[in-house]
Amino acid sequence: MPHLDPYFKEVDGLQGKFIDRLKSAVAIPSISSEDERRTDVVKMGEWLAEQIRAVGGTVELRQLGKQPGREHLDLPPVLLGRYGNDPNKKTILLYGHYDVQPAQKSDGWATDPFTLTMDDKGRMFGRGSTDDKGPVLGWINAIEAHQKAGVEVPVNLIMCFEGMEENGSEGLDNLIEEEAKKFFKDADVICISDNYWLGTEKPCLTYGVRGCNYYSIEVSGPGQDLHSGVYGGMTHEPMTDLIKIMGSFVDPDGKILIKGIDDLVAPLTDEEAALYPPIAFTMNDLHESLGSEVSIYDNKDDSLKHKMRYPSLSLHGIEGAFYTPGAKTVIPAKVIGKFSIRTVPNMEIDAVTQLVEKHVNEEFARLRSKNKMKFNVVHCGKWWVEDFNHPNYTAAAKAVERVYGVKPDMTREGGSIPVTLTFQAQLGKNVLLLPMGSSTDAAHSINEKLDKRNYIEGTKLLGAYLHYVAGELVHPSK
Amino acid sequence: MPHLDPYFKEVDGLQGKFIDRLKSAVAIPSISSEDERRTDVVKMGEWLAEQIRAVGGTVELRQLGKQPGREHLDLPPVLLGRYGNDPNKKTILLYGHYDVQPAQKSDGWATDPFTLTMDDKGRMFGRGSTDDKGPVLGWINAIEAHQKAGVEVPVNLIMCFEGMEENGSEGLDNLIEEEAKKFFKDADVICISDNYWLGTEKPCLTYGVRGCNYYSIEVSGPGQDLHSGVYGGMTHEPMTDLIKIMGSFVDPDGKILIKGIDDLVAPLTDEEAALYPPIAFTMNDLHESLGSEVSIYDNKDDSLKHKMRYPSLSLHGIEGAFYTPGAKTVIPAKVIGKFSIRTVPNMEIDAVTQLVEKHVNEEFARLRSKNKMKFNVVHCGKWWVEDFNHPNYTAAAKAVERVYGVKPDMTREGGSIPVTLTFQAQLGKNVLLLPMGSSTDAAHSINEKLDKRNYIEGTKLLGAYLHYVAGELVHPSK
Ligand SMILES: [Zn+2]
Ligand SMILES: [Zn+2]
Ligand SMILES: [Zn+2]
Ligand SMILES: [Zn+2]
Repeated sequence: MPHLDPYFKEVDGLQGKFIDRLKSAVAIPSISSEDERRTDVVKMGEWLAEQIRAVGGTVELRQLGKQPGREHLDLPPVLLGRYGNDPNKKTILLYGHYDVQPAQKSDGWATDPFTLTMDDKGRMFGRGSTDDKGPVLGWINAIEAHQKAGVEVPVNLIMCFEGMEENGSEGLDNLIEEEAKKFFKDADVICISDNYWLGTEKPCLTYGVRGCNYYSIEVSGPGQDLHSGVYGGMTHEPMTDLIKIMGSFVDPDGKILIKGIDDLVAPLTDEEAALYPPIAFTMNDLHESLGSEVSIYDNKDDSLKHKMRYPSLSLHGIEGAFYTPGAKTVIPAKVIGKFSIRTVPNMEIDAVTQLVEKHVNEEFARLRSKNKMKFNVVHCGKWWVEDFNHPNYTAAAKAVERVYGVKPDMTREGGSIPVTLTFQAQLGKNVLLLPMGSSTDAAHSINEKLDKRNYIEGTKLLGAYLHYVAGELVHPSK
Repeated sequence: MPHLDPYFKEVDGLQGKFIDRLKSAVAIPSISSEDERRTDVVKMGEWLAEQIRAVGGTVELRQLGKQPGREHLDLPPVLLGRYGNDPNKKTILLYGHYDVQPAQKSDGWATDPFTLTMDDKGRMFGRGSTDDKGPVLGWINAIEAHQKAGVEVPVNLIMCFEGMEENGSEGLDNLIEEEAKKFFKDADVICISDNYWLGTEKPCLTYGVRGCNYYSIEVSGPGQDLHSGVYGGMTHEPMTDLIKIMGSFVDPDGKILIKGIDDLVAPLTDEEAALYPPIAFTMNDLHESLGSEVSIYDNKDDSLKHKMRYPSLSLHGIEGAFYTPGAKTVIPAKVIGKFSIRTVPNMEIDAVTQLVEKHVNEEFARLRSKNKMKFNVVHCGKWWVEDFNHPNYTAAAKAVERVYGVKPDMTREGGSIPVTLTFQAQLGKNVLLLPMGSSTDAAHSINEKLDKRNYIEGTKLLGAYLHYVAGELVHPSK
C-alpha cells in the first residue's frame, strides 16, 4: 500500500500539533467519579466534539439523563460521531472514552497530573495520556494527517466515545442496544483502543478477556460480637466456619478445587497453543511486575496461559472480622467472606454459580455448625473471546507489521472490558482490541504516561489499520 | 457469729449514706484511657484516699512516674492503705481499682453515665457503679458500719487500689514485686472484688481464670497488592496460604486440632466435676447471653466446663485483606491472621507456643508455596487457679451462706484477670475473687449498673467474710 507512505510522512510532520492536542485534552480534568469534576467531564466531551467537527466529522452529544442513584448529577454525553458516508466503503465503529481516573499531585505524582510533561526519554506524563485520551485523539490525528497528505480515508468511521468508562459506563449498554439497528447499523467491524501491550517493545492484538464471577459467603450466629475469654469454647464461631469454607476453594498452586469447574474450560487447540511461544514476555518481566518471585509456574507460556485462558480463584478478604493492627480478643458475630473466579470459555456464568453454590452448601453441611450460612452472588461479568482469523484481525496484524516491522503478539487480557461483550452481543460484529500504549504506562496509577513513540507510531498504526481492514473485508487473506 | 447481726443492721441503717458515697464516686469521670481525663483519675484517687482516712485508715498515694510510651502523662497513684495494725490479728490484702471505662451519653446511655441514677427496680445506673467503685466502697462501708455498730473489725486490712486497671495496670506489677516483702508482707490472704456472678440470683466464689496466648501469622509474597484479573492464576496468593493455615487449627465444634495441646490439659478430678452440677446457670441463660442458640453443647455442665476449664481457640480476623462492604478484586500482598488460645491448667505458655509454632510451620511447609510466612507471638498471659479448700474460700462460702442463705457457686472466669497471678506469684498467698455485682451489670458497656441489693447485701458479705476468714485462718474447717 504505497499511499501509506505520504500518510506516515504527514504524521511525522504533524507530531508537534498532535502532542499539543493531547496536552489540551490532558489539561481538562475529566474525572468521572468525582461529583465536582462532572462539569469538566462535560467540557471535555464538548472539546472532543469540536475536534471531530474541525476535521470534517459530524457529531451528536447524546444526553443520557440523570445518573442512577445520584440524581443530582447529569450523566456526561456519549459522543456519536461520523466521518464519511460512502455506501461503497466499509464502515468501522470506533470506541473510546474521554473521562479519566482521579489524580492529584499529592498522591505522589512527580509532575502536575493535568499538565502533559515530556521528559528527555520522550515519556509524556499526564492523567489520561494513555487511558484513553491518547488513543482517542489518535483517530482524529489519523483523519487530519490523511487530509493533509491528500490520501483518502478508505472507510467510513462511526465513533462512540463515552465519558463514564472509569465510573461503570452508566447508560452505555442501553444506548448500544437502542442504536444497534440505528446509528451503529452500518458498522462492519469494531475497533477499540483502550488496553496495553504486554511489554514495552512489541505491539499486540487482544482477542479475549476473562470474565469475573464475584461471590460472598455470610456466616452468622451469635446475636452480637462476643469476648473470646467469656464465650470461647461454648459457642460455634462464625469465623471458624467461614475460614473452613474459604479454605476449600483453591490450592496454593492455583488449582481450583470446586468439582466440575475444570470440565467447563475449553480445551487448548493447537492453533491457540501456537500463539503463546512467540509472545514477547519473560519470567523476568513477570517477576518485576509482581515485585517478587512468587510466580506459580517457572516458564512464560504456562504463566501466560493461566493469566489468559485458564480460570483462577482469589480470596479477597473478610468483612466483619477484626482487621486493624493490634490484638483484639473478639469472636465476630457475623463475617462475610469475599472471593471471585476469573472465567474463560466455555464457563457460562450460571453454570459456574451452580457449581460454586453446590460446593459451598456441601462444605457448610459437612461442618455441622449451628451457625447460619448465606451464599450470595455479588456480580458477574462474562468472558469475551473473538475469532482472531477474522479480516479485522488479519488487517490489524498487517498494519502492525507495516508500522513496527514485527508480527504482533496475540493476547488475551486477564481482567474484564465489559463494552467488548456488549458490542459483540448487540451488533453481532467482530471486535478488535488494538492497543496504543505499553505495559509501563501506569494507567490508573500515579505518573501515568504515554511514550511519544507509542503516540506517533500508534497514530500511524490506526491509520494503516483502516487501509488494511478496507482491503481484508473485501478480499480476506485467510 | 452473733456480733454480725448488729453489723448487718447498721449496714441497713446506713444504706442511704452508702448510696450517696457511690454517687459521689461515680460523679468523678476517672477514665484512665483518655488523656484529658487523667486529672479526674487523680482526683478520684485523692477522693478515695480521703474516704479511707475518714474511717480511720492511713493511706499513701504512691506515685508511679510517667506513663511508658506516653511520657506527657503521669500515671495515677496507687493507694496503699491500712486499717488496723494489731499483731494478734490476721491481715487481709484487698485489691480494687478506682478508674473506669470510657462513657458518654451519646454512646446510647439512657441516663447521664456520671450521675448515679436509681430506677424503681433498685438498679443504680452509672459508669463504675459495678466496675469497680461499688465493690471498693463496699470495704469502706463495711469499716464504717462496724464502727457505728460498735463491732470490732476482726482483721487488719491492707488496701491496694489502683487507677490504671482499665488501661493495662501500668506499673502495678513492679509495685507489687517491690512491696511484696515490705508493705504487703503481713498479708495472710488476698481478696479481690472485681468480677461478677454467673447469673443474677446466686453469688459465686471464683477460683480460677483462663490464660490467653495471642498469635499472628504473616504471609507475604507480591511486592504490592495485585489486580486479580491481571495476576490471578500466575502467582501464589498470600490469602490462599493464610486461610489454609487458619483453617487447620480448630473444628466447628471447638476441638483444637493442634497436636499435643489436649495432652497438656489437667484431667478433671471428681472433686472438681462435682462443682458444676449445683451451679445456677441454664442453657436458657446461655442462649440469652449469646443472643441465639449457637451453643456447641446441649447441656449446662459441658458448656461451663468448656468456658472454665478447657482451652478454646478463636480466629479473630485478618489484617491487610479487603474488609469493607462492596466488592474489590484485589490480591492482597501481605496478610496477617490473628488468633488466640484460651489456656487452662497445666498448659504452660511456652509449651503451648512451641506446639502452635510447630503446627503452623508444618502446615505452611505442606502448602509448598513460594510466599513467605512469619509466625509471631503477640502476647501471652498465664491462667490462674487457686486451692478452693483453703480457709480463704471456706470463710467466704460461710459468709455467702450467712448473708444470702445459699451455698455459693464455685466458678472460674473464661477471660483473664492478670493481677491475681501477680499477687499469687509475688506474695505466695491464697487469692480469692469475691464478686459483688451480677451478670447483667454491663460493666464496660452502656448503662452499666449495680443493683441496690448487690451493693447493700454485698457490703454485708464483705464484712461477714472478714469475720469468717479471721476464724478459718486460725481454725480451718476443712
Ligand atoms: Zn480506559
Ligand atoms: Zn481506565
Ligand atoms: Zn474491674
Ligand atoms: Zn473493667
